[in-house]
Amino acid sequence: MPSASASAGALLRHVRTGRARSRADLVALTGASRNTVSARVDQLIAANLLEEGGRGWSTGGRPPTLLQFNARAGCVLAVDLGVTSVDVAVTDLSARVLATAGHPIDIAVGPEPVLAEVDRLGRLVLEEAGLDTSAVCAVGVGVPGPVEFSTGRPSHPPIMPGWHDHPIPEAFARYDCPVVVDNDVNVMALGEMGVAGSDQDVLVVKVGTGIGCGVVVEGRVYRGAQGSAGDIGHIYVAPPDGRTVICRCGQENCLEAIAGGGALLRDARAAGLPVRTTRDVVELAAQGDGPTLELVRGAGRTIGTVLAALVNFFNPHRIVMTGGVARAGAPLLAGIREAVYGRSMPLAARALEITVSDAPDLSGRLGAALMAIEEFLGEDAVHRALTR
Amino acid sequence: MPSASASAGALLRHVRTGRARSRADLVALTGASRNTVSARVDQLIAANLLEEGGRGWSTGGRPPTLLQFNARAGCVLAVDLGVTSVDVAVTDLSARVLATAGHPIDIAVGPEPVLAEVDRLGRLVLEEAGLDTSAVCAVGVGVPGPVEFSTGRPSHPPIMPGWHDHPIPEAFARYDCPVVVDNDVNVMALGEMGVAGSDQDVLVVKVGTGIGCGVVVEGRVYRGAQGSAGDIGHIYVAPPDGRTVICRCGQENCLEAIAGGGALLRDARAAGLPVRTTRDVVELAAQGDGPTLELVRGAGRTIGTVLAALVNFFNPHRIVMTGGVARAGAPLLAGIREAVYGRSMPLAARALEITVSDAPDLSGRLGAALMAIEEFLGEDAVHRALTR
Repeated sequence: MPSASASAGALLRHVRTGRARSRADLVALTGASRNTVSARVDQLIAANLLEEGGRGWSTGGRPPTLLQFNARAGCVLAVDLGVTSVDVAVTDLSARVLATAGHPIDIAVGPEPVLAEVDRLGRLVLEEAGLDTSAVCAVGVGVPGPVEFSTGRPSHPPIMPGWHDHPIPEAFARYDCPVVVDNDVNVMALGEMGVAGSDQDVLVVKVGTGIGCGVVVEGRVYRGAQGSAGDIGHIYVAPPDGRTVICRCGQENCLEAIAGGGALLRDARAAGLPVRTTRDVVELAAQGDGPTLELVRGAGRTIGTVLAALVNFFNPHRIVMTGGVARAGAPLLAGIREAVYGRSMPLAARALEITVSDAPDLSGRLGAALMAIEEFLGEDAVHRALTR
Repeated sequence: MPSASASAGALLRHVRTGRARSRADLVALTGASRNTVSARVDQLIAANLLEEGGRGWSTGGRPPTLLQFNARAGCVLAVDLGVTSVDVAVTDLSARVLATAGHPIDIAVGPEPVLAEVDRLGRLVLEEAGLDTSAVCAVGVGVPGPVEFSTGRPSHPPIMPGWHDHPIPEAFARYDCPVVVDNDVNVMALGEMGVAGSDQDVLVVKVGTGIGCGVVVEGRVYRGAQGSAGDIGHIYVAPPDGRTVICRCGQENCLEAIAGGGALLRDARAAGLPVRTTRDVVELAAQGDGPTLELVRGAGRTIGTVLAALVNFFNPHRIVMTGGVARAGAPLLAGIREAVYGRSMPLAARALEITVSDAPDLSGRLGAALMAIEEFLGEDAVHRALTR
């Protein structure tokens, strides 16, 4: 691929993701000249982002000097704000968690008390990791609602009363570094793609109280015209029993009003099951309770009818289920698969994998860290830093 | 954008699309050095792809020499195969039509007779344009069914009996140039984006006998994991009157079995309207026939329920309707808008434009030409050509 970018940021990315381990690898990957690659690698070494370490195997001639990414050149703060919980982690520049802290919280108490708590947790994890405020290179924040990505302000978030237009980045002013805020499902989608990334087309579907979807096109989060892509919770569905359910958004028969965590809890209570929270419903299903299993499977079927349409339209490589309800695992997946494989076009469904996230609890923090790292080490950012 | 590509193909694209008119523009756009840009521009001039012409306005100092793309450096053949028609055009390298020819045909007679006819039309348009076989730099072909993009072979196309796995590119062997074959809706989507392209997210929805959708992400056709993205004709819909309709694919209540051109014709006949073809239905609607208008509007509403879901998921800037039924215009659009604006999230629908194609007859040929031009003048192709 001789036309591939050979900017310093692109070279750094090849080393960070393990695709290149030497200057020769970088020359082969980018098609750039040996001189160009060497000059940019020297800049990255001077900036403390790359290190030389050891020698590789010779393939004839002098064995190459190995290059390593210096993940300890800085750290990032990763903030995962949920409807009922807050988690903050400090990670190195390869998204390895150095310290983390979190606890239940009600996001509806509003931005000031929640962000003060985030600030406290941020100091705590930095102290625990033995790091100074000045070491923080970027902050990534995931919030459970729509965000105007360019400003980091929530935009009419339905389950975050008081947060509309609040300038979240200002809460991190004392770190004097870039702050990136995004919708929690986009952040989780990044987390599911992992550090090395991939060039696949993936849907990361979060089933918590509500239902949302992170849309990944060729390994990158797709946002759409107003940044609201993936907002699948309010797609109309015909409920299996023909009833009409009013959603909290005011419309009838939205997907999340029929099959989200809140809907599951409502239906479980109506069926007389001994549950107080959605977590209780998931617990009961895990214990193999028959009526609960059937409820969860039914929710899966309803979610599956929407996903079947999206599979025809989007033809993804993979669908990953995450969020609190996804912890129910097997019965939810069974319902989803039944609907998706029963109603998608054979070509689109042929190689499609539908799985549950390996770490639904961690993907929010990991994604927030990756988002912050990308802001700090992306190609344009590195270029700006090196030519400053 | 200092990290933008400054490959010869990238520079050529800036001039082709009108973003750059001089070496200085190219330096400003790519951030590459004056020397690098000049060396690559000289290569492109030597390859006859760029020309120098005239002088621009001086902004102090010597006025810059203007650069022009030489669209007559070659030509491409554009083939638009429909279910009931074939059109072939020869265009220059800016997709300007030099000659075109076409007529009704039945694609179900199979690949040999249809492709023999395409071959005859190809010779005809070249002769008409006064061009030699050797001037053809690439061939673009759109076909009404799924295509394995890498090989140019149709893959189980439901309305092209006998075409499965047929090596379409071999029919153009005598041009000794690249041949690109794609699904007609992807090709039409390219045609709707036009020569200058755009970086928008767009859905181009074709309503002909069947229903399909070209998905454009940031100005590029999105294909998905198996290349079947946009296959929305077989998404399940609940028909407004509660009946069950078996689709030609064997499933129940597919979108196109309820609201495609074939379905419209069936319903118009059942209502006793004097129609023999879908075109007759569209004509009757254009004449303002009440019952026909209501049928078309109803089809629009059904299509709109699917598009409402896709608007929430994909959050496009624009939706463009094309294909034979889209010529009905107003009543179809009215039904679509009613359903989309009634059921989409306000954020996603806020700035959404839904329009009918300006030139539904031409977009197939224009898109096939653009696809061929991209194959010939894309960044990798130009790099290969210049370093050969």
